[in-house]
Amino acid sequence: MSAFDAIPTQDPPLLDADALEQRLRDIGAKRYHNLHPFHEMLHNGQMNKGQVQAWALNRYYYQSSIPIKDAVVLSRFRDRQTRIAWRHRIEDHDGNTDSEGGIERWLQLTTGLGLDPAYVESTQGILPATRFAVDAYVDFVGRRSPLEAIASSLTELFAPSIHEQRIAGMLEHYDFINPGVMTYFQRRLEQAPRDANFALDYVRTHATTPAAREAVCQALIFKTNVLWVQLDALYHAYVSGFPPPGAFRPERL
Amino acid sequence: MSAFDAIPTQDPPLLDADALEQRLRDIGAKRYHNLHPFHEMLHNGQMNKGQVQAWALNRYYYQSSIPIKDAVVLSRFRDRQTRIAWRHRIEDHDGNTDSEGGIERWLQLTTGLGLDPAYVESTQGILPATRFAVDAYVDFVGRRSPLEAIASSLTELFAPSIHEQRIAGMLEHYDFINPGVMTYFQRRLEQAPRDANFALDYVRTHATTPAAREAVCQALIFKTNVLWVQLDALYHAYVSGFPPPGAFRPERL
Repeated sequence: MSAFDAIPTQDPPLLDADALEQRLRDIGAKRYHNLHPFHEMLHNGQMNKGQVQAWALNRYYYQSSIPIKDAVVLSRFRDRQTRIAWRHRIEDHDGNTDSEGGIERWLQLTTGLGLDPAYVESTQGILPATRFAVDAYVDFVGRRSPLEAIASSLTELFAPSIHEQRIAGMLEHYDFINPGVMTYFQRRLEQAPRDANFALDYVRTHATTPAAREAVCQALIFKTNVLWVQLDALYHAYVSGFPPPGAFRPERL
Repeated sequence: MSAFDAIPTQDPPLLDADALEQRLRDIGAKRYHNLHPFHEMLHNGQMNKGQVQAWALNRYYYQSSIPIKDAVVLSRFRDRQTRIAWRHRIEDHDGNTDSEGGIERWLQLTTGLGLDPAYVESTQGILPATRFAVDAYVDFVGRRSPLEAIASSLTELFAPSIHEQRIAGMLEHYDFINPGVMTYFQRRLEQAPRDANFALDYVRTHATTPAAREAVCQALIFKTNVLWVQLDALYHAYVSGFPPPGAFRPERL
């Protein structure tokens, strides 16, 4: 099944916006990557510095692709109001010439972990699975309907709790983590709920048939897979101990 | 780094076609998926039936995407002779209305392993990493230069030895495998060398600068990553025992 086919489902038809929202929250409860064993280890202090470096290095590719993804989403809308409502997301990540954005804040984290920013920005050491998953997300928002493009951002509904857990857990457990390098997550605690509420309102209003609501749910499942695959690949490479040819090798595993 | 950027390298410039071919063979020797621990287990009889099912089920998505990939490659050439030379690849996999192709032969394998062909063809149970990697391959041949599109097929240079190993190893070690279900690989023993030789001649002739030869090498590395990621994901899900939400669960692991 390619990106162009509908995914069959046995679930009952979604008859209204409340049924849609309930199903979206169920998907998050079952598939969001807060449930992944890699995150459990990361937040509970069970990782060494090399493993945390590998996570931050790979996640940089995701972070730095988000404004590209959001520019593609924006480009899908003839409706000026939707473009205006979406535009700040690009700025949130890219910042301005005189102020930092999310990408720079992520580089503060990787630099704080002892990684050379030029190496991080080159993305040379990332896992191929990271690249494929993130590129699939950018591709998805360009090829699927504008409604599905917006719906795929709905993982942000579930982000604040994982960010809170991460800030507290990482500061508590790792002596190489200090508040200064965690500003990315602090900032997202304000940004993510605002963005998630916009997207949720959008799909509640614009998905007006059971088929459209089902497509919204499948877009969210797709996005949970994009996130989950990245952690599976990190776990396999840096917890199970099978880094693929050419990937980052921490000095201390 | 997105699919649009060149990947920097420290390797010496490739000054002629022989240097290119040598580098391509080195890449194969270091990165082809015959080196992956999943294949070692598969060929040495160390897997149970459920693990072999998971491998065949996921690999179906790769197999069934190949004629789509080859149609995209073909579409990149204004030159009719190249299109003619490439066209049989689509037929090799799709067959004709009255004769089977590689996809049907792969379904004989999955059916022989006890999987419902409708379930296999739906691709519902495959790992998201499989889908992202395979879709990245189809995307690559559409976006990169026609030279790189052809170069990405060069893993076929290294396929015959893995197919021979697989046929012998799987027939010897698994009582649920018989010669009838292995015809896909038998057939590829003839087809792959012919296709690989065409692609090798093509890149030797058409990559006429060190930069073009480097791009050919990077296209081969990309493709080895597409193959490696699929086995990493299978290993993590079905050997390490972390199948992701929604993926195939064998009756017997």
